[in-house]
Amino acid sequence: MITDRIGKLRQKMQERGITVYVVPSADCHESEYVCAHYRAREYMSGFTGSAGTLVITMREAGLWTDGRYFLQAEQQLQGTGIRLFRMGEPEVPELEAYVKEKLAEGGRLGFDGRVMGAFQAERFFQAAGERGADVQMTEDLVGEIWEERPGIPDKKVFLLEECYTGEGTKKKLARVRLEMEKAGADAHVLASLCDIAWILNLRGDDIPGVPVVLSYLYMTQTSGIWYVREQVVTEEIVKKLSNLGIEIREYEKIYEDLEELTGVQKILLDKKNVNSRLLFGLPESVQVIDQSNPSELMKAVKNETELQNLRTAHLKEGLAFTRLMYWLKTHAEEEITERDVAEYLDTRRKEQVHYLEQSFAPICAWGPHGAIVHYSATEESDIRIGTDGLLLVDAGGHYLEGTTDTTRTYVLGSVSEEQKRMFTAVCRGNLNLAFAKFLYGCTGSHLDILCRKPLWQMEADYKHGTGHGVGYLLNVHEGPNAFRWKQPEAGVQPAVLEAGMVTTDEPGFYLEGKYGIRTENELVCKKGIQNVYGQFMEFEILTLTPVDLDGILPEEMTSQERDWLNAYHRQVYETLSPYMEEEERQWLRIYTRKI
Amino acid sequence: MITDRIGKLRQKMQERGITVYVVPSADCHESEYVCAHYRAREYMSGFTGSAGTLVITMREAGLWTDGRYFLQAEQQLQGTGIRLFRMGEPEVPELEAYVKEKLAEGGRLGFDGRVMGAFQAERFFQAAGERGADVQMTEDLVGEIWEERPGIPDKKVFLLEECYTGEGTKKKLARVRLEMEKAGADAHVLASLCDIAWILNLRGDDIPGVPVVLSYLYMTQTSGIWYVREQVVTEEIVKKLSNLGIEIREYEKIYEDLEELTGVQKILLDKKNVNSRLLFGLPESVQVIDQSNPSELMKAVKNETELQNLRTAHLKEGLAFTRLMYWLKTHAEEEITERDVAEYLDTRRKEQVHYLEQSFAPICAWGPHGAIVHYSATEESDIRIGTDGLLLVDAGGHYLEGTTDTTRTYVLGSVSEEQKRMFTAVCRGNLNLAFAKFLYGCTGSHLDILCRKPLWQMEADYKHGTGHGVGYLLNVHEGPNAFRWKQPEAGVQPAVLEAGMVTTDEPGFYLEGKYGIRTENELVCKKGIQNVYGQFMEFEILTLTPVDLDGILPEEMTSQERDWLNAYHRQVYETLSPYMEEEERQWLRIYTRKI
Repeated sequence: MITDRIGKLRQKMQERGITVYVVPSADCHESEYVCAHYRAREYMSGFTGSAGTLVITMREAGLWTDGRYFLQAEQQLQGTGIRLFRMGEPEVPELEAYVKEKLAEGGRLGFDGRVMGAFQAERFFQAAGERGADVQMTEDLVGEIWEERPGIPDKKVFLLEECYTGEGTKKKLARVRLEMEKAGADAHVLASLCDIAWILNLRGDDIPGVPVVLSYLYMTQTSGIWYVREQVVTEEIVKKLSNLGIEIREYEKIYEDLEELTGVQKILLDKKNVNSRLLFGLPESVQVIDQSNPSELMKAVKNETELQNLRTAHLKEGLAFTRLMYWLKTHAEEEITERDVAEYLDTRRKEQVHYLEQSFAPICAWGPHGAIVHYSATEESDIRIGTDGLLLVDAGGHYLEGTTDTTRTYVLGSVSEEQKRMFTAVCRGNLNLAFAKFLYGCTGSHLDILCRKPLWQMEADYKHGTGHGVGYLLNVHEGPNAFRWKQPEAGVQPAVLEAGMVTTDEPGFYLEGKYGIRTENELVCKKGIQNVYGQFMEFEILTLTPVDLDGILPEEMTSQERDWLNAYHRQVYETLSPYMEEEERQWLRIYTRKI
Repeated sequence: MITDRIGKLRQKMQERGITVYVVPSADCHESEYVCAHYRAREYMSGFTGSAGTLVITMREAGLWTDGRYFLQAEQQLQGTGIRLFRMGEPEVPELEAYVKEKLAEGGRLGFDGRVMGAFQAERFFQAAGERGADVQMTEDLVGEIWEERPGIPDKKVFLLEECYTGEGTKKKLARVRLEMEKAGADAHVLASLCDIAWILNLRGDDIPGVPVVLSYLYMTQTSGIWYVREQVVTEEIVKKLSNLGIEIREYEKIYEDLEELTGVQKILLDKKNVNSRLLFGLPESVQVIDQSNPSELMKAVKNETELQNLRTAHLKEGLAFTRLMYWLKTHAEEEITERDVAEYLDTRRKEQVHYLEQSFAPICAWGPHGAIVHYSATEESDIRIGTDGLLLVDAGGHYLEGTTDTTRTYVLGSVSEEQKRMFTAVCRGNLNLAFAKFLYGCTGSHLDILCRKPLWQMEADYKHGTGHGVGYLLNVHEGPNAFRWKQPEAGVQPAVLEAGMVTTDEPGFYLEGKYGIRTENELVCKKGIQNVYGQFMEFEILTLTPVDLDGILPEEMTSQERDWLNAYHRQVYETLSPYMEEEERQWLRIYTRKI
């Protein structure tokens, strides 16, 4: 099937004189997750991970993806003839270097500029230029061969009220405009859906797991235009936006409008967050101020209303997770599959008010599946959970009170001492980060080692970041805050941890073919004491569900670490138990006991 | 006295129409330590620290220095009318911002371009330009008013043999030329004395504590010119260099030669390591490739010969330090002053062969003096060591086998539990860094938190970096490796820790007016195991002298930390004891006992 599709694409390439064609993962908004309509890279390769770029030449095909997806991609690419390029591994050529090598003199590079990020496109233009090759960015070749391509959802947009957002759109617009002024920009164009949803306090349902609406926002100091498909907008929203001086125009009209832009000297945009057609369509007279969207940092710093809501969301999610754990621990004899686990968890969530949907495809991975970092059980892969082993559950939900992301690994039956040692090391890393105190000015790049240290001291590691920012009823992955020691791109400075930022703390350990362990909490950064040394910062743990004590070797922990785990479990018990049945409560007491 | 000198300088400024005059700390080579001749900033301000910049206007005078010197500068500036600007503290204006503010329209900024770094000068040019002010960089006004200015030393240069350097000059020149080629440079000019001494395998005695020779080196792919004062060069060296194709010219001739440079299109130089007269004197046709001197990284990575020699140097230094500790611990009743301690230590060093000189002015600081991070006892400040308290000794030596830098804090008599708690926290930080395992690619910015963590968890800190690179019979402070979480300058990327780099590990705790604690070892970075996770790296501790167990509270340490300290003390005992007298050995056994 995949080879057929690649064959058809090569035909189209030949017709256009294109020698190298690139299929990225994104939609027109550089989204990490995309709706079915935009899954061109998946359609062409069979690889379902959220990140990856496919390159097709007349003779070869290659897929670039990162460490999270090495195992999954290897399996899914089997038999397709597509070669896997493991990004970041030694000897693996970079995407642009490969493209450049494959572009013969006078060759032609092709891609659909609407789904290719501007920053990436500039690198391709450079590579092609150095080869004397041509670039063709207006052809959606995959679209031409894609039969029965899914459409774009048409659900209505809804307004998120101030009791959830904590800040009105008027104020948010004013803050963004102040930053535009500071940057010396007359205008600002945004394509990133989460920024737009955050500024306008609107949510949609256009991407599974990300409640945003496909749209663009254009702003000046006095006006605004929201480019959106008219069928998803209600009268109420038109009126609300009109009161804020924001006009609504048809979604695709932005390309034409930007090409004909007049009266603008400097436009603020983030090349990493607009597609290349938007950037390259601008008149030459317009100067681009390339910096992060001001709203990126603003939305990462949660306000007091959002934080209070998030505590509620995590109480709800904690109840669902803890009830799942109770069920797993007390129903070991039943025939349960990975997908049953995911369904059970989501059923428990649905008992809570204001629950909307899962914030990403849940990972319920038994035994060896746990070692596939972003495994998601499909009908084919789904397996029965055995009696002895580790079950990794990484899942989250969207509530009106915010988005959650939790991972717990459950010990079912008996596991080896080695597995417990690794389970304990992962837990220690998680606690060492969560209970860290640090001076203001530190970034997640400085703190990452606190979490990895127990594993590094054992000469082990996990091949993913320690944590990512979490959106508020937006993408579960959000920047600029993160915990990671390796920067994903050269020249990108890690963000200083600010009070109000929410970041996950999710160390893991994976043994290919055997098992996987991960423990993930969400942390809010808060101000600690200020003294002669400076402003100390610390974290509050939002996530509320036990770390499975059946996996813990207390003697492998320091007394400090045991105190931290005990304090956390006390908090879990005290917060959740009032909402639980007596039987559950009795059980919870045991699983939150002092060690 | 200081106010007189400033008065005289203002007269000179008035004569030249200069409204703001800047006096930096450096010599013509951007050296950290300078010989007496170049101590213009000290002459004008009375401040003796190694880092600081003095700015004089017709009405004001200000000194900028960093956290290491806040206390010392405050004391030394008393009564001078010079205001202290604590760099990095909130609300403290940056040097350039202050200069800009003080430069009125049409004003004139002055400095001696030979002692002003090119990178810094460019920032001043920009500040002046924005004010429409003029810059005058050829006037050494301090030189004009400085009566009885010391001369430059005239000692002979000596050759460091290959049994010490491990690599001949020919090979070093070839490695530098390869990097010049990679950078696309026809020529390369170096002013940094340590780089020049390292490449040429020559040492001198022109700066107290730094055995280098004032000179410049100019290189092309085929030729070289060493600009040096002829009276310090021997026939042997002239011959050796001539065999390597290196011509010798008079020291100051470089300015003229560079101004008249022909046949060179691109010159490699490090703007942070050449003075501004050299940079601004280049013909406009020459393009500057501004990057670190290739020799900076090369000399930071010690070769096997150097490492083997360093182990010998640290054995010698360890014997001297341990004998000092023995004397302090067994002669408590004697009347000892801080300067007696420094002298005793140096006398013990002089018993060792191949000892040359101290690698920096030793810090022997009793009680409250210990809180002055870079205290150095003068005749006036010298105090008697009391019966109960902490004595901080930070000292090092130059041996033919390399340079050392050690700090120990000794408990004399009885100290408070609080002091022991802080002493233990400092020791824990030191051990956590020294015994860390980490993946290749980490920088000192990632590892710094391991050392600070025990203090940060107590909401305390030390206001200096955790560690610096150490030269081999060169400057005791060497880049690019360092342990620090705050980068000293924006845009400077921390260096990846490479096998062979030597870096100090020196956490501390300081309570102003009370006491200071610091424990410093030197660590060599080494390769650990390579496995599926990557290349693990670790350290070997070079420094060999006990951490005073009288300050340690074992119950405040984890069992892992106690194991580490015990392993270190076992190594200290095993390495030093064969060289000690029976009485000393008995005593050492107690001070390296298992806790």
